[in-house]
Amino acid sequence: MDRQIILDAFMFRHACKEFDPQARISEQDFAFILETARLSPSSFGFEPWQFLVVQDMAYREKLLPYTWGGKGQIPTASHFLVCLAMKTPLLRYDSAVIADFMHTVQELPEERIAARTAYYATFQQSDFRLLDSERAMFDWACKQCYIAQANMMTAAALVGIDSCPIEGFVQDKVDAVLAEDFGVDLTEYGVAYMLAFGYRIKAPKRKTRRPLDQVVRWI
Amino acid sequence: MDRQIILDAFMFRHACKEFDPQARISEQDFAFILETARLSPSSFGFEPWQFLVVQDMAYREKLLPYTWGGKGQIPTASHFLVCLAMKTPLLRYDSAVIADFMHTVQELPEERIAARTAYYATFQQSDFRLLDSERAMFDWACKQCYIAQANMMTAAALVGIDSCPIEGFVQDKVDAVLAEDFGVDLTEYGVAYMLAFGYRIKAPKRKTRRPLDQVVRWI
Repeated sequence: MDRQIILDAFMFRHACKEFDPQARISEQDFAFILETARLSPSSFGFEPWQFLVVQDMAYREKLLPYTWGGKGQIPTASHFLVCLAMKTPLLRYDSAVIADFMHTVQELPEERIAARTAYYATFQQSDFRLLDSERAMFDWACKQCYIAQANMMTAAALVGIDSCPIEGFVQDKVDAVLAEDFGVDLTEYGVAYMLAFGYRIKAPKRKTRRPLDQVVRWI
Repeated sequence: MDRQIILDAFMFRHACKEFDPQARISEQDFAFILETARLSPSSFGFEPWQFLVVQDMAYREKLLPYTWGGKGQIPTASHFLVCLAMKTPLLRYDSAVIADFMHTVQELPEERIAARTAYYATFQQSDFRLLDSERAMFDWACKQCYIAQANMMTAAALVGIDSCPIEGFVQDKVDAVLAEDFGVDLTEYGVAYMLAFGYRIKAPKRKTRRPLDQVVRWI
């Protein structure tokens, strides 16, 4: 594949603050975007995410009061996604969910499950100290969710679809709305980020980045 | 662009555990991969990352004792990257580094800098509570680093290059090596992840994922 076409997509992508409210992403194209999230890698392959696609405007409006970074996107996005990350009860090395995941989804034989569980326990207990706090585990799950986020944005850009990743919200308040109105169990999930998709209505600002020699060091 | 070609790249990508030690990624192709990291988005656009490309085998070997998840990749990867994430002293809303970044890199006028600093302060203080601990801030920076990680892996896959993201290491020990041997200032940076690139030497295992209806809920 032509490298320049891919780099052009990276230049095309920007944090689109407002979308053309008339322009809708086709069902096939949005399925394509979700497929890149589904196929994204994650630590141990445990896919610690859940994606809510909020198309009912009444539900989007429930998020609006606590989402200062989405004022222009929530009402105009063709598709609006809320990414949930898993919490400790689902992700702990000794959880039944993880054992079942290795068995059912990853289809690992029993001896591989035992070996992986031992690695996963060490990883959580000491390598990355994820058991130090509920937050440490949740933030680790969120990191994996950002892999899917990047892939959705890049895949969208490659086919000419705009997006905007959103962290501009009050985490506690949004979680409360998700529990109250969206039926999310906050013992199991919390909001990682929001991600809006659609088509731009105006030209983006110039992209700024540090030059490569300030970002990369060769050793 | 043909959606199927992109999805084929997502199927092609897998966590490659061992690379062909003879097969080298061209300078142009690796520059292309790094460019997709450089152009990656991040919260507030602050690019809280630094990439070490470790090509000197003597330096890779220093990481080996503490990197159980990279035993096959470290010696065989064409290119081996260590991603550093920024810490609180560089990222706090009132740091001189952030003010300088908005001025020099983002080229924002003074009144925009003042407004963004106010948003950024609220974001850190209450919306995402990043000042609760050093770790909360570091993990937040890591999340942004995972966006660049995903983009590098996907860009590589699109041009037929394999990769493996690595979290299988002892964070404290690797940080100590980075400080001692790589000259990394641990008050400013810590290891987020490692990422190996090269060309596969054997066929990957079948990719497993939950089906879409277990991952996505429409509202």
